[in-house]
Amino acid sequence: MADPIRVAVTGAAGQIAYSMLFRLASGEIFGKDRPVELKLLEIPPAMKALEGVVMELHDCAFPTLTNVVATDNPEVAFDGVNWALLVGSRPRGPGMERADLIKVNGPIFVGQGKALNKAAKDVRILVVGNPCNTNCLIAMNNSEVPKDRFHAMMSLDQNRARSMLAAKAGVTLKQVTNVVIWGNHSNNQYPDFENARINGQPVPQVIKDQAWLQDTFVKDVQNRGAAVIKARGASSAASAANAALNVVTNLITPTPAGDWFSSAICSKGEYGVDKGLIFGYPLTSPGDATCRIVEGLSMSAWAKGKFDNVLNELRSERDVVKDLLG
Amino acid sequence: MADPIRVAVTGAAGQIAYSMLFRLASGEIFGKDRPVELKLLEIPPAMKALEGVVMELHDCAFPTLTNVVATDNPEVAFDGVNWALLVGSRPRGPGMERADLIKVNGPIFVGQGKALNKAAKDVRILVVGNPCNTNCLIAMNNSEVPKDRFHAMMSLDQNRARSMLAAKAGVTLKQVTNVVIWGNHSNNQYPDFENARINGQPVPQVIKDQAWLQDTFVKDVQNRGAAVIKARGASSAASAANAALNVVTNLITPTPAGDWFSSAICSKGEYGVDKGLIFGYPLTSPGDATCRIVEGLSMSAWAKGKFDNVLNELRSERDVVKDLLG
Repeated sequence: MADPIRVAVTGAAGQIAYSMLFRLASGEIFGKDRPVELKLLEIPPAMKALEGVVMELHDCAFPTLTNVVATDNPEVAFDGVNWALLVGSRPRGPGMERADLIKVNGPIFVGQGKALNKAAKDVRILVVGNPCNTNCLIAMNNSEVPKDRFHAMMSLDQNRARSMLAAKAGVTLKQVTNVVIWGNHSNNQYPDFENARINGQPVPQVIKDQAWLQDTFVKDVQNRGAAVIKARGASSAASAANAALNVVTNLITPTPAGDWFSSAICSKGEYGVDKGLIFGYPLTSPGDATCRIVEGLSMSAWAKGKFDNVLNELRSERDVVKDLLG
Repeated sequence: MADPIRVAVTGAAGQIAYSMLFRLASGEIFGKDRPVELKLLEIPPAMKALEGVVMELHDCAFPTLTNVVATDNPEVAFDGVNWALLVGSRPRGPGMERADLIKVNGPIFVGQGKALNKAAKDVRILVVGNPCNTNCLIAMNNSEVPKDRFHAMMSLDQNRARSMLAAKAGVTLKQVTNVVIWGNHSNNQYPDFENARINGQPVPQVIKDQAWLQDTFVKDVQNRGAAVIKARGASSAASAANAALNVVTNLITPTPAGDWFSSAICSKGEYGVDKGLIFGYPLTSPGDATCRIVEGLSMSAWAKGKFDNVLNELRSERDVVKDLLG
């Protein structure tokens, strides 16, 4: 068997991790012949529950799972890892505004950014814990890991948008391509239907209900998380875990020709975004864990308004945490 | 693409199903080119939560998932299904004895047995909801589906036993084979280490600590569920879901030569078990969803005592529900 791939998961006793760890361990993501070592991070009060999760991982008898480490020390969790999936974050408490949430999460991601210096040279980092774009910004600015290794998760929004477009058009999911979520994983994100395609045609040529696209579709994607909470009585966990695994798969598999996927990465100024912001872009990958931004997409004036709105939101979030950016 | 495979899951808004549905939908089990249709059953008070689970399934944009049906009617859930995974059951309440638990679950499985008459001609049924052997016995006796299609889940115990033997011997999981759990998925089950092998050798020739095998190992496998609850604060869900998926995989994949897997099926008297009991046996499959019992394994007098003990437990459980067996 090949060398094990080492994957750190934070918030490892939480609900999203619980939907993620068993799929990572089963061989589904990295292949049935690739050993996987899991390095699980939790805060001290959750270590007992994490022990239970580790027991269940062993109780699956996955032949691909060669080792599991459980720790409350980020330097131990990230030591030598090839992937770091930062799922854990402080959830929003009663009466907390988004700015408060950003502030309470800041110190966690300062510490994790520094601890990521222990990772393997080829490490890739995905921040899932919300507010994920700004948590990612903080970790990146407090780490010596090259900036192009950091991602914040837009894939859940991309999946939701694809699924809604397929349902509306009455087509299969495979027929819906080229979906990008611009900007922030927040309810100001802009799910771009103008550049999305159904059977290779621009979506507005297939779904001719412009009011549905501009109003219902955009708002439904933006607010899907709240709708799931309302129905399920708990926030999205399995679909969030799945989306995180999609990011890994998107980066280790060549992107199908002509298509792209959504992920938030460090801007170098593409599409007029401030350099250094973690911004949701359309990406392609040759499958070696690198990626590049698809440039030159056009937007209507209406779409540009949505784009600027979410860009301004990310600028405001950056201002809230400016003391943590070194 | 091929015809969709139709899979019913009961207790679909519960924790085990939540760890199972996304793996069924992802293509991991039936293959990336095989469409899957999920038919989800819940009781009326859980239908709202189930709606949230269905939303999350759509939010994964699985290309293999072609349809999801959510219903509180078992006849709708089982209509035309190729697999029925009966996960839901009434949990044990405060002060309830095992016999009470068996009695409250009886009527559920009478109804589901009858509703299974709506399933596809090739249907295979796995009962996961506890007490799974006797729930399976009730469903089988109230259904026109051929008796050889019914399984009750011993695979979680098998996985736990394999994992513990591998850890004790310091070998990888692949080196541990031929593990059978005789009898009942209960704390009287007999995890057979005498016939199990490590690197092809009988386990007692590799792990020479007979006291550990007869005492610690057997009790730890029998009581693993309680140990997980104690650590995690919740019962095994992801590992139970994984074990259920293993049963499907074990039946649709040829069993490796010389090995076997554990599942509880309707006895025809093999090993002296009463005809018609749902009893955990060592099985092989050619991979076409049929299976046959491996006969001729020997047991020490000590092991025969364990075997008779769990056989008597299953006889007692049958007596508790004899009015439901038609």
